[in-house]
Amino acid sequence: MSIVIDSPLDMHLHLRDGDMLKVVAPLSATYFSGAIIMPNLIPPVTTKDEVISYKQRIIEASKDNSFNPYMTLFFKPTYSREFLSEVKDKISAIKLYPAGVTTNSDGGVTGFNIDELEDTLNSMSEFNIPLSIHGETNGFVMDREAEFASIYEMLASNFPNLKIIMEHITTRESVALLDRYENLYATITLHHLLITLDDVAGGMLQPHLFCKPIAKRPEDREALREVAFSGHPKVMFGSDSAPHPQDRKEASFCSAGVFTAPIALQLLTELFLENSNLDNLQKFISTNAQNIYDIEVPKKRVILEERDFIIPNRYGTVVPIYAGEQIKYSIKEIVC
Amino acid sequence: MSIVIDSPLDMHLHLRDGDMLKVVAPLSATYFSGAIIMPNLIPPVTTKDEVISYKQRIIEASKDNSFNPYMTLFFKPTYSREFLSEVKDKISAIKLYPAGVTTNSDGGVTGFNIDELEDTLNSMSEFNIPLSIHGETNGFVMDREAEFASIYEMLASNFPNLKIIMEHITTRESVALLDRYENLYATITLHHLLITLDDVAGGMLQPHLFCKPIAKRPEDREALREVAFSGHPKVMFGSDSAPHPQDRKEASFCSAGVFTAPIALQLLTELFLENSNLDNLQKFISTNAQNIYDIEVPKKRVILEERDFIIPNRYGTVVPIYAGEQIKYSIKEIVC
Repeated sequence: MSIVIDSPLDMHLHLRDGDMLKVVAPLSATYFSGAIIMPNLIPPVTTKDEVISYKQRIIEASKDNSFNPYMTLFFKPTYSREFLSEVKDKISAIKLYPAGVTTNSDGGVTGFNIDELEDTLNSMSEFNIPLSIHGETNGFVMDREAEFASIYEMLASNFPNLKIIMEHITTRESVALLDRYENLYATITLHHLLITLDDVAGGMLQPHLFCKPIAKRPEDREALREVAFSGHPKVMFGSDSAPHPQDRKEASFCSAGVFTAPIALQLLTELFLENSNLDNLQKFISTNAQNIYDIEVPKKRVILEERDFIIPNRYGTVVPIYAGEQIKYSIKEIVC
Repeated sequence: MSIVIDSPLDMHLHLRDGDMLKVVAPLSATYFSGAIIMPNLIPPVTTKDEVISYKQRIIEASKDNSFNPYMTLFFKPTYSREFLSEVKDKISAIKLYPAGVTTNSDGGVTGFNIDELEDTLNSMSEFNIPLSIHGETNGFVMDREAEFASIYEMLASNFPNLKIIMEHITTRESVALLDRYENLYATITLHHLLITLDDVAGGMLQPHLFCKPIAKRPEDREALREVAFSGHPKVMFGSDSAPHPQDRKEASFCSAGVFTAPIALQLLTELFLENSNLDNLQKFISTNAQNIYDIEVPKKRVILEERDFIIPNRYGTVVPIYAGEQIKYSIKEIVC
């Protein structure tokens, strides 16, 4: 059987900057046609110039002409209609972080006061700029995403023409929202399809599986699997692949983030062939995203085969998910 | 104000063996009059000879005549009345581990078949040997202890003359059981009075706060605090202090266990003086345990004072809880 994925897209990716960017950008660029690039650098990406220059650095680092970085801004409620009008052709979305909920999110939104947000969100609606959201409160770690549901609902109902992407959803509550509001969409990571809190902290503690939002309960994973495996048209793959050096993970204070980008296609192939089919994988990993974001993507055909592959122990200084373990599928060929 | 604790007891302690024993035994022996010593060595302590020789090694390592190690056996349903009769004067309890639920528990009990257990438990009742239990199922990590409640209830009601110690309880469900069955008692650790899952995995991941049972929800911690701070007569301090070398904690697979023994008295003093009083601390840390276990304890008076203390970064190769942080109380004097 020939396993073909056309123009895979990673709709939620962290590439960081500097030396780390040089290590990880080629690992995504080789396998994917494009990726939505998260703006939470230090300082975050908030101006047109920063978008342009970060994109340029990504293109230089990625060494692959068939990879398109879709850029984002770090949401600020101070973005004016004029600013957005000027920047809209350079970005594919604006990413909203509640303050303090994850890596480099300190400058994010505090409180969700509609009066404060509405000018910016109305202009985004007008220009058809999707709002991408890290949907967590500052509550108890297992409740944060479920508690955020009411904010998703408030935004979805008050801004019906705004496309809202619930990023890296992890709970059954978030899955349920998808069919309740026409303008809510979602990304799902590979690792949240694979693991629960039991994998992170149920046996030995595994820092390389620690991320935000944290992996939840088995019934949450089941809801994510069901909606992803069905090829649901509002659901896209977004790896949230986040590289941290090994010594920032295996430490007394471990940073949040799971590194999956270079093995995501192989593991998704295994998951979908065992639980769904290749058609739905194609929707999850490319077609749905093209429709939701209304984008043209570089042509890239990834051909996989059933052949054992040992996941490397490290990519540069970064330890990937399931480091050193054997998986079932390998990349055979990439045709651009 | 003079802060005096008389004959503090640690009713749940891991001292391990070999080099580690030599590092940690003096740290408990200096501050405590005695401790219930967990038997989960490799291989576990299951014979009279092993109890005697392990006790001897502890006494040699602890270098303090005013410290009494109260020994335990690793529960096996094959222990006969004859064996128990012979060993009963050498032990203070028998510790039951469900198989596979924590460090070195592989040889534990699988299933809780009353027919299989009753001979041993009836003999333990007859000889008044307390049954100490690590009460977790193999279920989802946040549910394991709550799921175990029905087993506690089954044992408590079927063996009304058996003293059953619910070790290191972490949930409101376990607290509620205390007043429902006359023969159920509990230990509570320092760290479960201090932290929730938010401290382990809500900000950065903190391997030195990772233990089994894992820290639970804020409302669970509240229930533990309430019952401990009240001086409830069925509740005892058991640190579950468990030393692992730093490189086994700050690793891709991190062992479970929080090391608290040498700073437990200082931190408990702070907690109780802020939330309760010294009388209830005395009950929690000594009097209740003496009554429950019906033991005489070596006299040791620990005098503390309000003076800043910086927790060491390491004791040997072991990183303690709150390493490097400043706390409010110091040990002033120990009078034996």
